[in-house]
Amino acid sequence: MELTHEQIAQYQRDGYLSLPGVFAGAALDTLRGAMRRIIAADRDWNFYESEGGPVRAYNACHWDEPVFADLVRAPETLTPARQILGGDVHLFQFKMNPKAPFGGSTGWAWHQDYPRWKTSDGMTENRAINVAVFLDDVTEFNGPLFLVPGSHRDGVLDGEEHANTPGLVALELTDTVVARAIDAGGIVSAKGPAGTVLVFDPNIVHASTSNISPFTRHTAYLTYNHVENRLVNPTREQHIASTDYTPLWLETEVA
Amino acid sequence: MELTHEQIAQYQRDGYLSLPGVFAGAALDTLRGAMRRIIAADRDWNFYESEGGPVRAYNACHWDEPVFADLVRAPETLTPARQILGGDVHLFQFKMNPKAPFGGSTGWAWHQDYPRWKTSDGMTENRAINVAVFLDDVTEFNGPLFLVPGSHRDGVLDGEEHANTPGLVALELTDTVVARAIDAGGIVSAKGPAGTVLVFDPNIVHASTSNISPFTRHTAYLTYNHVENRLVNPTREQHIASTDYTPLWLETEVA
Repeated sequence: MELTHEQIAQYQRDGYLSLPGVFAGAALDTLRGAMRRIIAADRDWNFYESEGGPVRAYNACHWDEPVFADLVRAPETLTPARQILGGDVHLFQFKMNPKAPFGGSTGWAWHQDYPRWKTSDGMTENRAINVAVFLDDVTEFNGPLFLVPGSHRDGVLDGEEHANTPGLVALELTDTVVARAIDAGGIVSAKGPAGTVLVFDPNIVHASTSNISPFTRHTAYLTYNHVENRLVNPTREQHIASTDYTPLWLETEVA
Repeated sequence: MELTHEQIAQYQRDGYLSLPGVFAGAALDTLRGAMRRIIAADRDWNFYESEGGPVRAYNACHWDEPVFADLVRAPETLTPARQILGGDVHLFQFKMNPKAPFGGSTGWAWHQDYPRWKTSDGMTENRAINVAVFLDDVTEFNGPLFLVPGSHRDGVLDGEEHANTPGLVALELTDTVVARAIDAGGIVSAKGPAGTVLVFDPNIVHASTSNISPFTRHTAYLTYNHVENRLVNPTREQHIASTDYTPLWLETEVA
């Protein structure tokens, strides 16, 4: 799936690109089957909302699930990542967030992704990209991602460390910084049917509320990183921040 | 402002009615001026999100603010209430909720209003109506009310007491009850520009998330009750549950 020049320009300007209907029919069913197996499995790699609480993130799903390992090398995800990053990429992180219903998920405060990766993993530059695959429908009712268009162009903004979730320290942006970014760029919400692909810049300002609806909002987040953009001082484990820089190839390129 | 037969039928079927643009221009400016004075005032009647936290509800604003006292007798609010309740009404409750930004408000879990009034105030029957006046724009970003259409027709549902807010015990519906209601009726969100009037049945199932945006969402909630529908065992103070059954008249009727 090749992005057009216009789509790439839009991504560079806004910091995100929403592509509805990328996965549908049998391909979507296959992904949702893998999702259900991950949910049912007894896994060591999950983050929880609280001790004994619902799952906040299923990390490294591609280790357990061949379907998700294939997704990492799929033209729908890998090709846009290579186009935008302009070269060979490796997989830095794979997580699936369920956004637990009935308020089970506390949501995510306003943050950027890259500052955490720089601080905790020593990622040299922001030469990475998030490719989100919606595994459930995302509506205004189950805690969609709120994005601030264009905010990625201001680089790393002022944040503070918060340890709201066991095992996961978040760098939350200050209210002043968020207000200024939204004053400039507004807010959009990333809604769309299951099968939508949302690519977004690791420096875009984003957040989400809790999910008070009865509906889960499982999303797979694949983060690709340029193979030259090494983690110079990684402190986190491989299921969170991978230092395997082997370039990824499409199935068709390997054959 | 007379509701049409169609609007009344719609209210009875769905349990709510949204009327955008009821207040605009100078009339809206006047209401927003009163809102700002209430915010700035030192008041004894407020509920807070937590000890020392932001305000959750400004109660009995019509006591302090002539503009809000007038609003209680305005054709835009009182006339629909009298039409729907079919007779003379009194004001049971007036509150203004700011929905504190940047996550300051924890939102409201799924609940119905009437069960609390029955339990705490001895309100005999559900012969009351909520008339909400939006004082700020309500968007998908600042914690709009989520309503379950038609859920008011099932009467009082199973709930549990939760004391999340100082001075305010909420009757929250169980997840099972909420899931069943939403399965039948779906969810709508009550969005609209400042000046919108939203009327809704005290038995409709509703909730809202926290407001993580920088934008407040001040809403005035006027609850009218039929004068015959007495509070037989009131336990709360007059600024929360009024037992003054004097019928309300429009300004034009008094003159």
